Amino acid sequence: MAFIDKNFLLNSDIAQSLYSKYASGLPIIDYHCHIDPEEIASDRKYDNITQIMLGGDHYKWRLMRAAGVPEEKITGGASDKEKFTAFASVLPKAIGNPIYHWTHIELKKYFGYEGLLSERTADEVWELCNDVISESSLSARKIIGMSNVEVICTTDDPIDSLQPHERCEADQSLKTKVIPAFRPDKAVKINAPGFSTYIEKLGTAAGIKIQTMEDLYSALRARIEHFDAHGCRISDHGLDTIVYREAKAPELDAILAKGMEGAKGMEGAKLSQEEEEAYITAVMLFLGREYARRNWIMQLHYGALRNVNSQMFRALGPDTGYDCIGETTCGNALARYLDALNEDNLLPKTIVYSLNGNDNAMIDTLVGCFQNGKASGWMQHGAAWWFNDTLYGMKDHLENYAAHSMLGTFIGMLTDSRCFLSFSRHDYFRRILCDWIAELILSGQYPEDEKALKELIEGISYYNAKQYFGLE
Amino acid sequence: MAFIDKNFLLNSDIAQSLYSKYASGLPIIDYHCHIDPEEIASDRKYDNITQIMLGGDHYKWRLMRAAGVPEEKITGGASDKEKFTAFASVLPKAIGNPIYHWTHIELKKYFGYEGLLSERTADEVWELCNDVISESSLSARKIIGMSNVEVICTTDDPIDSLQPHERCEADQSLKTKVIPAFRPDKAVKINAPGFSTYIEKLGTAAGIKIQTMEDLYSALRARIEHFDAHGCRISDHGLDTIVYREAKAPELDAILAKGMEGAKGMEGAKLSQEEEEAYITAVMLFLGREYARRNWIMQLHYGALRNVNSQMFRALGPDTGYDCIGETTCGNALARYLDALNEDNLLPKTIVYSLNGNDNAMIDTLVGCFQNGKASGWMQHGAAWWFNDTLYGMKDHLENYAAHSMLGTFIGMLTDSRCFLSFSRHDYFRRILCDWIAELILSGQYPEDEKALKELIEGISYYNAKQYFGLE
Amino acid sequence: MAFIDKNFLLNSDIAQSLYSKYASGLPIIDYHCHIDPEEIASDRKYDNITQIMLGGDHYKWRLMRAAGVPEEKITGGASDKEKFTAFASVLPKAIGNPIYHWTHIELKKYFGYEGLLSERTADEVWELCNDVISESSLSARKIIGMSNVEVICTTDDPIDSLQPHERCEADQSLKTKVIPAFRPDKAVKINAPGFSTYIEKLGTAAGIKIQTMEDLYSALRARIEHFDAHGCRISDHGLDTIVYREAKAPELDAILAKGMEGAKGMEGAKLSQEEEEAYITAVMLFLGREYARRNWIMQLHYGALRNVNSQMFRALGPDTGYDCIGETTCGNALARYLDALNEDNLLPKTIVYSLNGNDNAMIDTLVGCFQNGKASGWMQHGAAWWFNDTLYGMKDHLENYAAHSMLGTFIGMLTDSRCFLSFSRHDYFRRILCDWIAELILSGQYPEDEKALKELIEGISYYNAKQYFGLE
Repeated sequence: MAFIDKNFLLNSDIAQSLYSKYASGLPIIDYHCHIDPEEIASDRKYDNITQIMLGGDHYKWRLMRAAGVPEEKITGGASDKEKFTAFASVLPKAIGNPIYHWTHIELKKYFGYEGLLSERTADEVWELCNDVISESSLSARKIIGMSNVEVICTTDDPIDSLQPHERCEADQSLKTKVIPAFRPDKAVKINAPGFSTYIEKLGTAAGIKIQTMEDLYSALRARIEHFDAHGCRISDHGLDTIVYREAKAPELDAILAKGMEGAKGMEGAKLSQEEEEAYITAVMLFLGREYARRNWIMQLHYGALRNVNSQMFRALGPDTGYDCIGETTCGNALARYLDALNEDNLLPKTIVYSLNGNDNAMIDTLVGCFQNGKASGWMQHGAAWWFNDTLYGMKDHLENYAAHSMLGTFIGMLTDSRCFLSFSRHDYFRRILCDWIAELILSGQYPEDEKALKELIEGISYYNAKQYFGLE
Repeated sequence: MAFIDKNFLLNSDIAQSLYSKYASGLPIIDYHCHIDPEEIASDRKYDNITQIMLGGDHYKWRLMRAAGVPEEKITGGASDKEKFTAFASVLPKAIGNPIYHWTHIELKKYFGYEGLLSERTADEVWELCNDVISESSLSARKIIGMSNVEVICTTDDPIDSLQPHERCEADQSLKTKVIPAFRPDKAVKINAPGFSTYIEKLGTAAGIKIQTMEDLYSALRARIEHFDAHGCRISDHGLDTIVYREAKAPELDAILAKGMEGAKGMEGAKLSQEEEEAYITAVMLFLGREYARRNWIMQLHYGALRNVNSQMFRALGPDTGYDCIGETTCGNALARYLDALNEDNLLPKTIVYSLNGNDNAMIDTLVGCFQNGKASGWMQHGAAWWFNDTLYGMKDHLENYAAHSMLGTFIGMLTDSRCFLSFSRHDYFRRILCDWIAELILSGQYPEDEKALKELIEGISYYNAKQYFGLE
Repeated sequence: MAFIDKNFLLNSDIAQSLYSKYASGLPIIDYHCHIDPEEIASDRKYDNITQIMLGGDHYKWRLMRAAGVPEEKITGGASDKEKFTAFASVLPKAIGNPIYHWTHIELKKYFGYEGLLSERTADEVWELCNDVISESSLSARKIIGMSNVEVICTTDDPIDSLQPHERCEADQSLKTKVIPAFRPDKAVKINAPGFSTYIEKLGTAAGIKIQTMEDLYSALRARIEHFDAHGCRISDHGLDTIVYREAKAPELDAILAKGMEGAKGMEGAKLSQEEEEAYITAVMLFLGREYARRNWIMQLHYGALRNVNSQMFRALGPDTGYDCIGETTCGNALARYLDALNEDNLLPKTIVYSLNGNDNAMIDTLVGCFQNGKASGWMQHGAAWWFNDTLYGMKDHLENYAAHSMLGTFIGMLTDSRCFLSFSRHDYFRRILCDWIAELILSGQYPEDEKALKELIEGISYYNAKQYFGLE
């Protein structure tokens, strides 16, 4: 009756053998996630399975909404038990959805439940999980330990103090390294509400009054140095789309001034598209060069259309399940941006992710134009991201990466998650990787060359990331 | 020697079992097609197999053209026998094309022919089918009966009298419900030839002289009420692309006036793209709200590039096989349109279809931002449409729907066809669905949970649509 | 230990049978490649395996760069042995990449090596291949002979003398027909550096001083006649994207004059996008009509973003591995261009290729609007091109072609290569084709109709191209 057993998704003897020999035992380097570092520093505890499994997880919220569950039982005032039951009741309809897999993997790995979650079993699972939580004092750090996580890279705002990271670093009992990543989205999105307020806060954090682009650059540089001193080696950008429009310094200063004025009230003067693009281009060029100078890695996430449901945005705020895949029309701008950095020999190691899977082949071939002899896989096409983090999405990503680049250099999986249970997605990925490689072998596309297979799978699962991010 | 047998496309024991237990016996709800209701009301008869199989079926015409068959033997003056022979002769080259399957399914199901159609067998099949037609008096209603069709939803113009629907409704001998759908494309496409003539006709049908947008809205509302009184609960839009551009009432009145003048002669003043978009946005917002107020379902079909061959358009008119898949660049506009309706709490149940399969994941995630607690699957990604109505297209649609939404809420298949034989496409879809689900089970992606599987397959095949359209 | 054996990629008895009966023995018609005709005329010899396998092959260069091989060992001053060893060392990481297959096919077919190339075997393979090269005097013509090539169609500039083609034609010992193709890219790309210099050379070649569009047309016509006299029947265009913008003669003359002035120095006045599009449209319309009048075939290759790495472009020039897949937004323009030619009854046989595989279905359905009764498959969707020339890319191309058109009319594979060893890619394609068709049979999608299968496979492998290009 067990659905998720040890051979889950490993559909051949070769797949099972590759997975057990080369993938299953390796630690996890989670180089991009949205876990709150405070929850690690303070070792967050949980009252029940809903808190740990459904709290903040907008993937699952969306699934419940699609099934017609009222918002009351998703983010509203219903009890945690009611919410869990609502989730359990609709889950069997989610055939072919990764949440069906993730949920059962999580229930098995962290709670020892081997049955199927549904309306019929909701009560039983609720009791069982809550017993495990209280009996074993399940906590953030306990989950991290159970998951064999070596490194966690959080996602942090330039104005963050990084105080939780300091506490993690100082705590000898914590074996997992917790590193910040620099995500200056709020300094980039000049047309977003609250921009000028944010710029003031950034100035305060950096001890600089920001009035010109040079001031802004100084402030960002100061915060980069602060992050660097806390072990940060990775930046991250969440861009709606990639833009590229060059402009001169005086024009940029005027745009910044206008942006700081306009966005003070949410109804202020909006910048034109040209102005917005010019500003973003300038800031992104500045940042890319700063990253390169410090041997940081730059992550570019683009292609999301965010907060498309205005009613629910007003009710729940961002990151609550109202984003979607956007259009795919910025390959030219991406090429020009990377080229501009490269012209100054200041193109950092870069990982490009698009939320639109149609971009896969374009990204693979585009980043291939900026590879160099400085490192294996200097330019990376990031793992199947967010909505693409599915069996189909991951296979499509792997097939394109392999066909258009060199898969053996790929730095592998990340969780991108807000939830500690999501570390199990690394295992999900490794199974899919091994099964996919086994398919290539079985269909005569790759030989049973054990030495090469060991290097490939161990590299993609663990060692490539370790080397790429300088974690050795 | 039978190619299409009872296990056609069911490539595992599980697939065969799922299909026979949960899919094969259910009636058909064909919630979107282009069948002429007059042909049902008058129970159209046929002289030969060409009339029934090739008449009006531009899918097959395109296939013949690709093989170099002269137009004479497709839509021209050649005899029906010559046309059938020409089709039969090129069919074996159509490997991997759904028409190869559809044709053989149709020949088996309605005529009892189990061989392969080709030049070699054309004469034999011609005789056999024509014998069946004359001996069994094969007619529109007879085919409907053989197909176990419970509901047929036709596609009708706002100015249609719906008199054939009245006759169907009044006819006790007709067991199948025949419902109209409201398709106001001609009132939306302000830049199309004949717009002003159409607006005059619309005014006449509604008893209103249309000079302003308010007049237009009154006329459309009157016709919506006429349709509503005839059992209509579904609208349909065939949009080249989705647009969104807000404008004020006076500007819109001026655009309407200009459009009615310009389009009188086909050479009249064309509206600018901005004007066209403003007009379409206004009318679509008005209509969406009217649908919501009446609990109608709104269908949005977009992404076709129509009538691209001007020579053949002049010779044969629209819907003769000269349309193709268009570009995919309107996700942002679609999001803004749905959001605008949602802001007024007047977003009707909506089914979105794109002719460009690259939009699949975008649509699944976009409509997921507007799900709500009012019904399961309030927002739907419509079944693989037109050129995507292939084994690959349907599987891609299912995979995306499942991965990005909740497949168990999907309302399933429709024919979109002008041809009565096409009801067999529901069976084609159900086989593909069962085989695909069986693949998930066999590869360990979903458990053999009979209760869940029964609900899933019966729901997608029949019950979900019945509930969604309020046909219970 | 052999990886590439006689059943390579043929994963069923049916696949093996189809391949051996209908595909393996047929000659090759390579109707599009970039082989230097001089190397055939003079029967180029090679010193070592690096020259023949890695020289000029930017596919392999990109792979090495992705693995972090320094440019020194790719296009730089390192010895040929070092370059070969560098390539061999990283190759095992290229799982899922066609180069992994191509390399082993080439080593087996032309050098008899049946092992796996890697760092461990690099020395052994280097010796073995070089022995074969010297012992058998391996040369361009010898490879052509070993590959059973009946026709090679090179790609040539309008100003080329075609003298090497004359020598090939005159040489009785050469059994393979070597035909030029007319590729006037430099006359089309008015905004490219060197445009005016090129136009002067074109005028010189044609004996015409080019000042107006009429002059330009006369010059191009003269060169078309020159090519026609040398057996040319195929044109080819490498377009960044397809554009369509009509303009009047005086405006076009002014644009041409501006373009010839501007591009003299590389810093000259650039034309606006509108001007560029108007010019390109005019020249493409002129050329399309000329091709139609002579029963030439027109090839349109679009969708590449070229020379995106400016540093490397300055260092190595074009066609060195710094191009990528571009955006996909020109379906409308393509439709209008084909329609404009068709309006004059001067639409030549046309083969459309996009570098962006997302265009596959759009192209299949778009060209389907211009099929006619003059020939089977008058309009073609060209074989999976460049970055799409992978197992996945070819299968996706075949699936779309089959689903949206009539696969039995497809003219099949080409190499598009600069390397003589690449003729083996025809065999790679035929194996994939046969395996894919066998999958359709095994999954009940096509019957085991031997007559039809023979015609399909032989047609796609050889006879369709022979007929399409009038080579009978």
